[in-house]
Amino acid sequence: MIKAGIIGATGYAGAELVRILTGHKDVSVMWLGSRSYIDQKYASVYQNMFELVEGNCLDDRLEDLVKQADVVFTATPQGYLASVMKEEYLTQAKFIDLSADYRIKDVSVYEQWYQIEHKSPQFLEEAVYGLCEINRDQVKQARLVANPGCYTTCSILTAYPLLKEGLIDPDTLIIDAKSGTSGAGRGAKVNNLFCEVNENIKAYGIATHRHTPEIEEQLGYAAGRKITVSFTPHLVPMNRGILATEYASLLPKSDGSLPTEAEIREVYRSYYQEETFVRVLEPGMFPETKWVEGSNYMDISFQTDPRTGRIIMIGAIDNLVKGAAGQAVQNMNLMFGLPESEGLRLVPLFP
Amino acid sequence: MIKAGIIGATGYAGAELVRILTGHKDVSVMWLGSRSYIDQKYASVYQNMFELVEGNCLDDRLEDLVKQADVVFTATPQGYLASVMKEEYLTQAKFIDLSADYRIKDVSVYEQWYQIEHKSPQFLEEAVYGLCEINRDQVKQARLVANPGCYTTCSILTAYPLLKEGLIDPDTLIIDAKSGTSGAGRGAKVNNLFCEVNENIKAYGIATHRHTPEIEEQLGYAAGRKITVSFTPHLVPMNRGILATEYASLLPKSDGSLPTEAEIREVYRSYYQEETFVRVLEPGMFPETKWVEGSNYMDISFQTDPRTGRIIMIGAIDNLVKGAAGQAVQNMNLMFGLPESEGLRLVPLFP
Amino acid sequence: MIKAGIIGATGYAGAELVRILTGHKDVSVMWLGSRSYIDQKYASVYQNMFELVEGNCLDDRLEDLVKQADVVFTATPQGYLASVMKEEYLTQAKFIDLSADYRIKDVSVYEQWYQIEHKSPQFLEEAVYGLCEINRDQVKQARLVANPGCYTTCSILTAYPLLKEGLIDPDTLIIDAKSGTSGAGRGAKVNNLFCEVNENIKAYGIATHRHTPEIEEQLGYAAGRKITVSFTPHLVPMNRGILATEYASLLPKSDGSLPTEAEIREVYRSYYQEETFVRVLEPGMFPETKWVEGSNYMDISFQTDPRTGRIIMIGAIDNLVKGAAGQAVQNMNLMFGLPESEGLRLVPLFP
Amino acid sequence: MIKAGIIGATGYAGAELVRILTGHKDVSVMWLGSRSYIDQKYASVYQNMFELVEGNCLDDRLEDLVKQADVVFTATPQGYLASVMKEEYLTQAKFIDLSADYRIKDVSVYEQWYQIEHKSPQFLEEAVYGLCEINRDQVKQARLVANPGCYTTCSILTAYPLLKEGLIDPDTLIIDAKSGTSGAGRGAKVNNLFCEVNENIKAYGIATHRHTPEIEEQLGYAAGRKITVSFTPHLVPMNRGILATEYASLLPKSDGSLPTEAEIREVYRSYYQEETFVRVLEPGMFPETKWVEGSNYMDISFQTDPRTGRIIMIGAIDNLVKGAAGQAVQNMNLMFGLPESEGLRLVPLFP
Repeated sequence: MIKAGIIGATGYAGAELVRILTGHKDVSVMWLGSRSYIDQKYASVYQNMFELVEGNCLDDRLEDLVKQADVVFTATPQGYLASVMKEEYLTQAKFIDLSADYRIKDVSVYEQWYQIEHKSPQFLEEAVYGLCEINRDQVKQARLVANPGCYTTCSILTAYPLLKEGLIDPDTLIIDAKSGTSGAGRGAKVNNLFCEVNENIKAYGIATHRHTPEIEEQLGYAAGRKITVSFTPHLVPMNRGILATEYASLLPKSDGSLPTEAEIREVYRSYYQEETFVRVLEPGMFPETKWVEGSNYMDISFQTDPRTGRIIMIGAIDNLVKGAAGQAVQNMNLMFGLPESEGLRLVPLFP
Repeated sequence: MIKAGIIGATGYAGAELVRILTGHKDVSVMWLGSRSYIDQKYASVYQNMFELVEGNCLDDRLEDLVKQADVVFTATPQGYLASVMKEEYLTQAKFIDLSADYRIKDVSVYEQWYQIEHKSPQFLEEAVYGLCEINRDQVKQARLVANPGCYTTCSILTAYPLLKEGLIDPDTLIIDAKSGTSGAGRGAKVNNLFCEVNENIKAYGIATHRHTPEIEEQLGYAAGRKITVSFTPHLVPMNRGILATEYASLLPKSDGSLPTEAEIREVYRSYYQEETFVRVLEPGMFPETKWVEGSNYMDISFQTDPRTGRIIMIGAIDNLVKGAAGQAVQNMNLMFGLPESEGLRLVPLFP
Repeated sequence: MIKAGIIGATGYAGAELVRILTGHKDVSVMWLGSRSYIDQKYASVYQNMFELVEGNCLDDRLEDLVKQADVVFTATPQGYLASVMKEEYLTQAKFIDLSADYRIKDVSVYEQWYQIEHKSPQFLEEAVYGLCEINRDQVKQARLVANPGCYTTCSILTAYPLLKEGLIDPDTLIIDAKSGTSGAGRGAKVNNLFCEVNENIKAYGIATHRHTPEIEEQLGYAAGRKITVSFTPHLVPMNRGILATEYASLLPKSDGSLPTEAEIREVYRSYYQEETFVRVLEPGMFPETKWVEGSNYMDISFQTDPRTGRIIMIGAIDNLVKGAAGQAVQNMNLMFGLPESEGLRLVPLFP
Repeated sequence: MIKAGIIGATGYAGAELVRILTGHKDVSVMWLGSRSYIDQKYASVYQNMFELVEGNCLDDRLEDLVKQADVVFTATPQGYLASVMKEEYLTQAKFIDLSADYRIKDVSVYEQWYQIEHKSPQFLEEAVYGLCEINRDQVKQARLVANPGCYTTCSILTAYPLLKEGLIDPDTLIIDAKSGTSGAGRGAKVNNLFCEVNENIKAYGIATHRHTPEIEEQLGYAAGRKITVSFTPHLVPMNRGILATEYASLLPKSDGSLPTEAEIREVYRSYYQEETFVRVLEPGMFPETKWVEGSNYMDISFQTDPRTGRIIMIGAIDNLVKGAAGQAVQNMNLMFGLPESEGLRLVPLFP
């Protein structure tokens, strides 16, 4: 039985970790860290867990936690883990960090976009970017996994095969993303009140959202060079789900013609047909966030447009599952040698 | 491996059966009946099932189905199963009917409220009303289970212990219920369009809803006599969930005083503390539909009001799970000698 | 031109006052009081008012305000106006208070339910309860109007004629009410976050909600004696709207028979047919909150149930209009001798 | 008093026309055409209009209607008006067509995208594209106005000034649009059921949506040449509102530098500062659909991105008002010499 501790167990991502791990046969959650609710019954904060989770919320004493746990999940604000991490901790437990602290290799890029001084850049090189479909082998060996962001998971996996195979022009990539409101967290802010979000849609973080450099770094690896993308997130009146609509110009093949639908489809299939959690939809079908709700699946499809020479790629995930807690558990499974889908065979809920 | 057939697999309740049975380790679904989608891939009708369910929709030839299946679920319009049922079928497979055809013992009451002639009343006596928490022993022996309605499951279990123990006056019982829109089915009707339901709440079927006689029959058994209730359903702009708010006058004890909170709580606990799927909330906590969403749990709580001498009892379920497909699987588990919660340990999804 | 000041202009009710008064040809809003946003442009707090309202938010110096304004609307927390009110102010401007401070004649009842000491009970006798349909003549003469609560407006007008005419038994009256989330205000609380309210319904304030004594007082006047009601509010995932479902036993007429549908309808018509803002629906039609959204209308209908001897009465309003700002303007029109519907001919928005 | 007839009065756009015209002091609606509801009371189809609109639904006999009406609004399926229009009608009444029949000058483009034979192309030259902010003078003289589509109104006005002034490269224009569900109409389709739309977002009509050629034609006039755009609409779980997020590369000025924020803002202001219904937001503010709900306003803002050399332009409208009925009334006002905003001073509803 893997003993798991969670720091930040009362945010939405932390609560989703609790939900998933409650159904994971090889894991026992033994530490529900939550500064805001110390000593309160966890099930009084998340009443859905009544009679399912018995423990109280604890504080976030990592020093004690690492002595007892095999794995520590941190679903904490940016900068927290970087500010407390020590080599010693990494020798005692494995870490899966759901914050952005170890996602970006270039510390100056991190500090510029997050406006936080990084307190432990010495672990950046070791940290593995936990996008399992791309970095599976490194994750298996990792002591410290940087769990990808929600927008980034969806944005990257949607475009990755085509960039990697040189079918699209990296300089034309535009990502227009739409997210449910759980992505904004459980903080009590006027902007996230029901009446402000409901019956409304808006863009935010235009040209400045922090997930941009993470997308650029990872897709840059695929393209084989530094790339710059336009990324615009939108807030949608729904609880869960991210839809990424991505635009890029197709690159002509050596004979001057553009790649065909069939050729593009074949590239997607070759990358994802063995992937349990990535579903490339059939021709003419396009992702809808409801079809992956509550599950770790990612749905992908695309449409070429001969009139403009562009391709429109579309991806959908549940931001709290494949975009956060589910992916974290997928990483944990890899790190502990379990079947990758253990505890993650959650069937999407519809309607 | 139990071989299960579903007639009406493309309605919302049928689809929920598919979702739950897909995760049930002892069951294999071998017949996805759907008149409207014959020969179409099931996963093209419910795209959430893509790569999870491979079969095509079949027609509803019961004669063939019963030869192959161990259990048949019928999630069909009122009157369908009654019109085709034969003794022979019951010798070949067990039946769990999600329609109302065998729920009401008095055929004249059925025919009056449903305005349908009942074509096989000879099976009414045998049919077991599949509210597991109340009729567990009979369900275990049953060939034909009448799976309770969604409103009725919630309404009955909320009031049952207090009526049975004589703490409330049956003649004062008023049930004001609120349901998510999946309860209205997947039929293409203007009334159920997004723009008609969203940002709106309304009562319907006032004093005439068909679940009324079902509630009255079952709660009548508890009260030990015929009772008549006011039942008013409302349509709420959400996908899933039923909340029943029930009002009744408390009956004085032999010393003339009214039952106390503690005494009432003790009654609830004595009925439900051993029940996996009924959670009596702690004092001061009241059910919210979101806390049971996607799960087979029912949450119950209450508040006494000394000013009026009434008690307000509140219950919540997911109408598609405990109110339909989940309860059907719970019944199936009992009928086949499996652990009652097999395949039903679904943790509620929040948010 | 009537000069109007608003204290509490940045809450939802205050903002609705601004919206309605912006379209009122005889009123000019000259004071947008908001402690939280002093000196900020009002239209930066409510961007819908961009280019429509030019002013900045001001503080709440009543002393200055009453010298300049003809009428002061206070959309403020309970206890505020009572704590600052002086006779001198009432000689300088008319007051319409959207809080509960002057709604309840018996100060001890107010203090018990609101748990606040009332600082100016000397004005309670003079204050007129501003339910125009019932107290029109007194409102016309008033210096100080206590604008009714949202739940109370809906609850009272739905039952008033039948209680007044003795058709229903006051001791059996049960009010099950459902409200959109704007009723919870714009305060930043976790409970009101989108993800907590969306896809959810719950009861709250069960047997303890503060609108209860207000309903009891007003319906007591109708009944001609003190009455006690069960009142249960529910939170619905929509922005606006209140639906009240009310249950009562019909009282037999002198010949022992119960009142007929036609007789009851005639009572409603006799009370409301001249009322611009109360619409008694046609037989078989029942209120839906969407049908009054954005307007000052109240829709009412009912269903008798011979099986139980009860009547189910249903009423619907927009909580921010007829339940708050619209009714306040209706009161203002009466107080200043304007046509009662001036500025209030808002057609309900559908969908 | 202008006598107005509406063909298609029971669709959402038709009903919005009724709502707006009901509040227009110079217009009397004398014909509520609706094939589906002939002889039914209009207010029984749209109960929000109870006691506000008295008439019954009529059929669509244009021949009779034009003899009585001064203006005819057609909110009808594509192809209807083109199939019945005659020169004679245009001499008897002015026409404002909310369908696409006369929007596209090149009949072959219309026939290709709509897959309908155009039955009266002889009126295409005369028809005026009724985007008031651009074609005001022609609208004033028109007998036949082609009222723009909802997506197109929003998409065109957002980019128009920058294309016209040569600040952006037309070949790079990508429009990612999001619409509330009323845009899908009131037809009873499974896809538009509450449970299918709620808690979901999806793209549709990818690279094939019929509003594409309309956008291309109008923005082509601005660019001074034929252009091709990527246009992707999305369905959002809300009733009303369209948000268009538009991407384009900025064109360098003669000195090689890119246009500054201030220069771009100045262009927007020069085009729209005199426009009542177009609001260019202040720097740092971005449109949200809720801020224009129920009103004829369009909000526009933008953000330049030096990293990519692109500009992100964002526009928002209420699809049923500025995107349909409101714009139709704005056109009518111009055609009849009334103040352009008569009957359209609707303040946006928030929340």
